[in-house]
Amino acid sequence: MTNCYLGIDAGGTSTRAAVVRADGTCVGVGRAGSGNPISAGPDHAAAQVLLATRHALEDAGIGADRMVGGIAAMAGSRVARHADWLNDPLHEAGIGISLTLEPDLLAAFLSATPQPDGYAVVAGTGAVAVRVRGFELEAVTDGLGWLLGDAGSGFWIGHQAIRHALAALDGRAPASTLTDALLESLELDPEAPAEVEGRPGAIQHAVDLLYTWRPVELARLAPLAFTAAQAGDPAAVEIVDEAGRALRAALTSMLVPEVSGPLVFGGSVLTQQPAVASAVAAAVPGQEPLLTSDGLVGAAVLALRRGGVTVSEATFDRLSETIAARRN
Amino acid sequence: MTNCYLGIDAGGTSTRAAVVRADGTCVGVGRAGSGNPISAGPDHAAAQVLLATRHALEDAGIGADRMVGGIAAMAGSRVARHADWLNDPLHEAGIGISLTLEPDLLAAFLSATPQPDGYAVVAGTGAVAVRVRGFELEAVTDGLGWLLGDAGSGFWIGHQAIRHALAALDGRAPASTLTDALLESLELDPEAPAEVEGRPGAIQHAVDLLYTWRPVELARLAPLAFTAAQAGDPAAVEIVDEAGRALRAALTSMLVPEVSGPLVFGGSVLTQQPAVASAVAAAVPGQEPLLTSDGLVGAAVLALRRGGVTVSEATFDRLSETIAARRN
Repeated sequence: MTNCYLGIDAGGTSTRAAVVRADGTCVGVGRAGSGNPISAGPDHAAAQVLLATRHALEDAGIGADRMVGGIAAMAGSRVARHADWLNDPLHEAGIGISLTLEPDLLAAFLSATPQPDGYAVVAGTGAVAVRVRGFELEAVTDGLGWLLGDAGSGFWIGHQAIRHALAALDGRAPASTLTDALLESLELDPEAPAEVEGRPGAIQHAVDLLYTWRPVELARLAPLAFTAAQAGDPAAVEIVDEAGRALRAALTSMLVPEVSGPLVFGGSVLTQQPAVASAVAAAVPGQEPLLTSDGLVGAAVLALRRGGVTVSEATFDRLSETIAARRN
Repeated sequence: MTNCYLGIDAGGTSTRAAVVRADGTCVGVGRAGSGNPISAGPDHAAAQVLLATRHALEDAGIGADRMVGGIAAMAGSRVARHADWLNDPLHEAGIGISLTLEPDLLAAFLSATPQPDGYAVVAGTGAVAVRVRGFELEAVTDGLGWLLGDAGSGFWIGHQAIRHALAALDGRAPASTLTDALLESLELDPEAPAEVEGRPGAIQHAVDLLYTWRPVELARLAPLAFTAAQAGDPAAVEIVDEAGRALRAALTSMLVPEVSGPLVFGGSVLTQQPAVASAVAAAVPGQEPLLTSDGLVGAAVLALRRGGVTVSEATFDRLSETIAARRN
């Protein structure tokens, strides 16, 4: 009978669970819906964490009595500091351990490295940079949401690209390939109808359509900017460059001399756009950025560490490999 | 018994009515709530137009049978081309004329001049530029709303100022007087609490508060940028300059050689910020911009013109003077 630890990575879209041994071997993984108590509500979130946990225990073929500790990583763990909303339903369902809450950004960092100190920049729909020290989140910048921050994020890039595409169509900015790319992605005809009340008809159709989206969904169109920038469109190049500068400024604001690295990048803007990643990584000379997709490995690292288990490089490598293998 | 004409300026906040004679003498004005069928709903909007009309007739001390024609100027008259929603309730209430719908931007232009051709730029919460030819709106640019356009508007300026204030507080941008100005206007203490989860506490409080606003309400804070710019804050100066460039680009895109002016400015950004107004007016050399506050005079001009009355400069001056006198 080996003791096991439970790592939960609770995101806004899905919740992932891993059951791991102290040597880093993952024996089971599970998955469920949104486990974020702010966006999904605490009852729904707790139910999804419980479901992901059950799936992981089934996958491992072990009972809940084998679990000796665990953590749940999630955004907004500040406002959900008390975990009763999560642990009470777990206990009622016969899972006796009490999960502690950890920041999802710390789990993201520790998904790429077992080091106690370093930096992470995550730029997906949103954008945030953090400094990690002694396995704790020491400082955070941005992550202020699409309206007030998230400079350089997928939303920011998509929003700027759409605004520029419409301004060009409207005659207020130089012509750009972003315009045709936008109309094509919205399946609108750039030619007809020629004019609606003194402006190109396509503008009114695009605007009417885009205002039916939730604002944050403009992030979907960030790829238009990357494609146009690669083809040399000056406006798109400027938008992508500006995103890189904004993310670099966020990272730079986190730097202190005592922490040199590692540097961890997450989110599609940084993991799928090498040009942006290079521009941002240049802020920390000599550090090749480590990429991470989600925080499940880091959640498992934290589950072990908070349970008193030292996570060596060998243990970390085993966690990474066995979690990846179980997920496939 | 002199025939009278009804001019309605139906805005999103209030509806204004003027009863005028063919010689330009205003004999009555009235006021009511929102008359915009899109934001207020057609039933409510029609009721407010009717109420403003009744107030104007009472003010004039005449019966509805004296009215021989009229128009209602409003935004979105494109989507409300059919005026049955407005005229049916008027007819039921014993007001026999049928109002035709006119663009509010045309009324704004004709509130400052009786000329058939020219340009108008309106930058309040939103921003839009138009070309007028032969008493019709010939071309329009921007006015695409806070998310997709309105470049250089009060929203745009307030939004940029807030983003910069937070970025500076977050360490991602150089310190700016915008930060203290923002926190003061939100009545937040810049000092306490020192830190919330790795970031200055004031940021989280400001963000939590600002996300309770409707996005468009960020326009309220545009004055922070004007004040800071006047005091020489570099970031604020850049924001205000950029707003001027955006509005100028909108106006420039409307220019054609056959139309030289006049140039009409409306909205608080252009009527209360002379530095912005000068930067924008420079796009049309030799034209001193005429300022307009709302579209009531222009609605009266259109009521006369659509009723077959030529509006001379003398008639226009009489309209302006007598409407202003009645409103005071």
